[in-house]
Amino acid sequence: MTELFGIGTKYEIACSRQQRLAVVLLKDGRRELYAFEAGGNADEPSAVIHLDEEEARRVAAVLLGTYFQD
Amino acid sequence: MTELFGIGTKYEIACSRQQRLAVVLLKDGRRELYAFEAGGNADEPSAVIHLDEEEARRVAAVLLGTYFQD
Repeated sequence: MTELFGIGTKYEIACSRQQRLAVVLLKDGRRELYAFEAGGNADEPSAVIHLDEEEARRVAAVLLGTYFQD
Repeated sequence: MTELFGIGTKYEIACSRQQRLAVVLLKDGRRELYAFEAGGNADEPSAVIHLDEEEARRVAAVLLGTYFQD
């Protein structure tokens, strides 16, 4: 966990396939997800996903298997 | 939600920045996260993130703001 002063908090998560994932919780509630590939540039994510609070909740629910819709 | 017979379940989530996110829950517990860019090829994700169950739980907890570590 890294405190980004004035901005938010960054969490880094190593994934099994040697990818790296960073999640930044911004102070205003938005989330940013950065995906880094193994062997790729550590400063250049292969994707950046921007989520607001509602979207983050939905993604989290799907990941946990607790999301249901009609 | 789309049933992928024999494979798992796919959830599509539209994001505010006109990105599209697809989460696939595989029957063996693994999750795949696909990020698609606005205006990009709908069949070619800009990133694919592979998560096992434990990693998915960790990412979900961070997104929800309920993840704490030392």
